Amino acid sequence: MQVAIVLYPGFTSLDVIGPYEVLGRLPDTEVVFVAEQPGLVRNDLKSLSINVVTTIADVTEPDVVLVGGGPGQPAQMSDGELHEWLRTVDRTSAWTASVCTGSLILAAAGVLNGRQATTHWAAMEQLVEFGVTPSKQRVVIDGHYATAAGVSAGIDMALALAGLIAGDDVAQTVQLIIEYAPEPPYHAGSLESAPAAVVESATNKLSARFPAR
Amino acid sequence: MQVAIVLYPGFTSLDVIGPYEVLGRLPDTEVVFVAEQPGLVRNDLKSLSINVVTTIADVTEPDVVLVGGGPGQPAQMSDGELHEWLRTVDRTSAWTASVCTGSLILAAAGVLNGRQATTHWAAMEQLVEFGVTPSKQRVVIDGHYATAAGVSAGIDMALALAGLIAGDDVAQTVQLIIEYAPEPPYHAGSLESAPAAVVESATNKLSARFPAR
Repeated sequence: MQVAIVLYPGFTSLDVIGPYEVLGRLPDTEVVFVAEQPGLVRNDLKSLSINVVTTIADVTEPDVVLVGGGPGQPAQMSDGELHEWLRTVDRTSAWTASVCTGSLILAAAGVLNGRQATTHWAAMEQLVEFGVTPSKQRVVIDGHYATAAGVSAGIDMALALAGLIAGDDVAQTVQLIIEYAPEPPYHAGSLESAPAAVVESATNKLSARFPAR
Repeated sequence: MQVAIVLYPGFTSLDVIGPYEVLGRLPDTEVVFVAEQPGLVRNDLKSLSINVVTTIADVTEPDVVLVGGGPGQPAQMSDGELHEWLRTVDRTSAWTASVCTGSLILAAAGVLNGRQATTHWAAMEQLVEFGVTPSKQRVVIDGHYATAAGVSAGIDMALALAGLIAGDDVAQTVQLIIEYAPEPPYHAGSLESAPAAVVESATNKLSARFPAR
């Protein structure tokens, strides 16, 4: 199985590394990080650069294609080489997946039309503009599309996909190997659980990226 | 605040990227990925290379130093430049932290002597050889040492550290921004919760790395 993970400048690292750590451990699986151009791709926090040797043009029929989100996502919303590639590989992929605002890129490319999907809580309404029905579930499976909520939700999505691809036993084995028995020290990871002051603080911090709804 | 995250060939990517995504979002924080030599550092699955521009010699007084684990850890257990650096920066660090088998490297460098610490479940007994008291807690804080269990536990550890460093409100805001409200699709992330067949399968998969106890 080949998994292609798309990178672009300003990606959020955990969006892609969470699912990578899960899917990369499935049997007989090759993961390739791909971008429009080869070379170093720098993340949103600007302190991490991943080296890309394979371009999207080099990967023609991945079994799984995954697009993460991040502050670089708005620059990937115009039609062009990436969107064309996404539409093409989506025709033969077993799974087309996204994490966080990666679903907005899939939506803009036109592949999520009429589907249910999720994204980061702050970007939820933007899905509607592309004919996508937003869902507040952390992981949404609709047809061969798997979308995850913000950043860390990609781990849960990838474990669900791992089960669908390789069976429950394999997915659980991966979960135990990466010791994924989460114990967050706070209960503030969702709009529903976070204190009002925390929601306000997070909304303010994200306001440049997601203008007030 | 400066956070130095140590990379070496064969690191496990989520070990370092989980905490990076949390600590890198704290106010007035600079994160540097460091290694003994500059250049590309390749991970355990061999499909990811991070570009390192800063060597450990360039970073003399980080506020936080973090060492992840991975199949490359055994090659980092002999005394030398890295261990010497760890002993030196540990004298002035506010926090010296590890994820997974990163704690074995800290222990081998001698900085965890007499402390309680944790590591990946399969490596727990190895801590004893270095005069460290193993703990089955997912996150262990002892003095200015913060150690996390396997791979994904670094996210929980980093959120706990974020609270201790910047206060509960800031830590919770980061948790909401990365939407960390985990919903694993299985309950197999610990030895206690995983079915016996899954424990056996994971133990077998890790047997080359962690010989039978």
